[in-house]
Amino acid sequence: MILTVTPNTALDITYRVRALRPHASHRVSEVLERPGGKGLNVARVLAALGHEVTVTGLVGGATGRVVRERLTAVPGLTDALVPVSGATRRTTAVVDDLSGDTTQLNEPGPIVTPVEWSAFQESYGRLLASADAVALCGSLPPGVPVGAYAGLVRAARAAGVPVLLDTSGEPLRRAVAARPDLIKPNADELAELTGSHEPLRAAQDARRRGAHAVVASLGAEGLFAHTPEGRWRATPPGPLRGNPTGAGDAAVAGLLSGLVERLPWPDRLARAAALSAASVLAPVAGEFDRAAYEELLARVAVTAEATAA
Amino acid sequence: MILTVTPNTALDITYRVRALRPHASHRVSEVLERPGGKGLNVARVLAALGHEVTVTGLVGGATGRVVRERLTAVPGLTDALVPVSGATRRTTAVVDDLSGDTTQLNEPGPIVTPVEWSAFQESYGRLLASADAVALCGSLPPGVPVGAYAGLVRAARAAGVPVLLDTSGEPLRRAVAARPDLIKPNADELAELTGSHEPLRAAQDARRRGAHAVVASLGAEGLFAHTPEGRWRATPPGPLRGNPTGAGDAAVAGLLSGLVERLPWPDRLARAAALSAASVLAPVAGEFDRAAYEELLARVAVTAEATAA
Repeated sequence: MILTVTPNTALDITYRVRALRPHASHRVSEVLERPGGKGLNVARVLAALGHEVTVTGLVGGATGRVVRERLTAVPGLTDALVPVSGATRRTTAVVDDLSGDTTQLNEPGPIVTPVEWSAFQESYGRLLASADAVALCGSLPPGVPVGAYAGLVRAARAAGVPVLLDTSGEPLRRAVAARPDLIKPNADELAELTGSHEPLRAAQDARRRGAHAVVASLGAEGLFAHTPEGRWRATPPGPLRGNPTGAGDAAVAGLLSGLVERLPWPDRLARAAALSAASVLAPVAGEFDRAAYEELLARVAVTAEATAA
Repeated sequence: MILTVTPNTALDITYRVRALRPHASHRVSEVLERPGGKGLNVARVLAALGHEVTVTGLVGGATGRVVRERLTAVPGLTDALVPVSGATRRTTAVVDDLSGDTTQLNEPGPIVTPVEWSAFQESYGRLLASADAVALCGSLPPGVPVGAYAGLVRAARAAGVPVLLDTSGEPLRRAVAARPDLIKPNADELAELTGSHEPLRAAQDARRRGAHAVVASLGAEGLFAHTPEGRWRATPPGPLRGNPTGAGDAAVAGLLSGLVERLPWPDRLARAAALSAASVLAPVAGEFDRAAYEELLARVAVTAEATAA
């Protein structure tokens, strides 16, 4: 199975309002709720692709109960989330009917105690024993040490499980030094890590810091891969209108899926770029339009770049 | 006991952000949750005043479970809420750290089925048997007929229980015709009911439409009462800075409390105006500062108006 880790799970709420005006009162015309947090989105895409996937991370409170109830409805997905006493955060996207623009309100997440984090680490160690690959996804909730992902990377490497890391800021910086097999930053995250806004230079630097391979998601420009086997760009056919939330998570699912199927890099990247583009066309993160995916898969352009440093 | 009815209970959420900007992403620095909906706020004030109070209305879903859990912590309050299959709505107040201004996002509430509303009506009928007074409070959730409050007013009158109504719009218009003992509109609600922005004229008209007595809450100007026993104004001592949410609910609690204690109108109005002002000074709806209340009670000016029509 593929294991995804979401330390800071979320209940993603979408509100439709006519137009958000600060300091006014708004009637919400539509309310949608779904399990959220990057690793849960990745897992739902993997499950839809037909993979057996197990989700772990931390979950708690009334919001956490809703997250778990919703996950039971996903075929192929096993819930191995670890309970904590605090409540899973809400992330609320307020969508304007008039403009289609979104205002985001993100709770910080529960305060996790050292005992709870230890319980999670034990559970994670046991789950690694039957994992073909693991993805470490998203932010860390309050109370979890900033070096936590570095520890989880080391445990995966010790267990011989390929590990993909998708986080940002100081947790990313610390965990890169623990030598993950793959990181998937977006352009901003890569620039924050390396100080360079030039993807080639930045990816080289990230590998020098410890990442075995780097796949950077560059929005409408697609993916840029810098690996020991070569460098590639995977570009979707033209710009896409839609909801970019979750596009990075779909790319992570494509990369993991290609990894466990031992696809060559160009095929992994085509799959990741097509899933990412297809998820932009879907209304919510963690979902994708299958017909659009298959059509896009044939039209993603993967080009090798000269590897002379 | 005093019975309060809240058909559209709520989980009131307060978010602190630095400054709300449409179409941006915001980190919420502080999250507060409490039971909400006008009737639950009224009940908490009554319980704090030492009254035995029973709350009923509709409650459901994960949000409803949180509301009920929080209510068990209120001494003197009995939970007789009726379960529905839909989820209790969230009302979110987003408070700007910089300006102190609030942006409100209100979910519509669960869709209530005819079977669920019938079950509520039966329960309400049983509760009336031991009620000294009843307050019907707030909006109706989707699915509940617009004439619902009129039916609840008639049932209370048939049971000989004094009934206070605090709602707005068409449900208020219909229920006023069923002859409630007291309505407590604010200036806007009274104007919407009667077409007049002049409190004296509007209150006269509301009584002509069926209300036995009218107490209008006029914000910083206090309360204006138009009753068969006379007309009064109750004015707090000077303007108050704070959170006006819940000030009307505190006034309702004061009026009910004075009613069951058979206080003369001027004393009821002084209590209601002082509670209302003290609740403005408290950070959340349904609470009040007791020391401020007692100090304000001595300083509220109640003046009789000439009753010549």
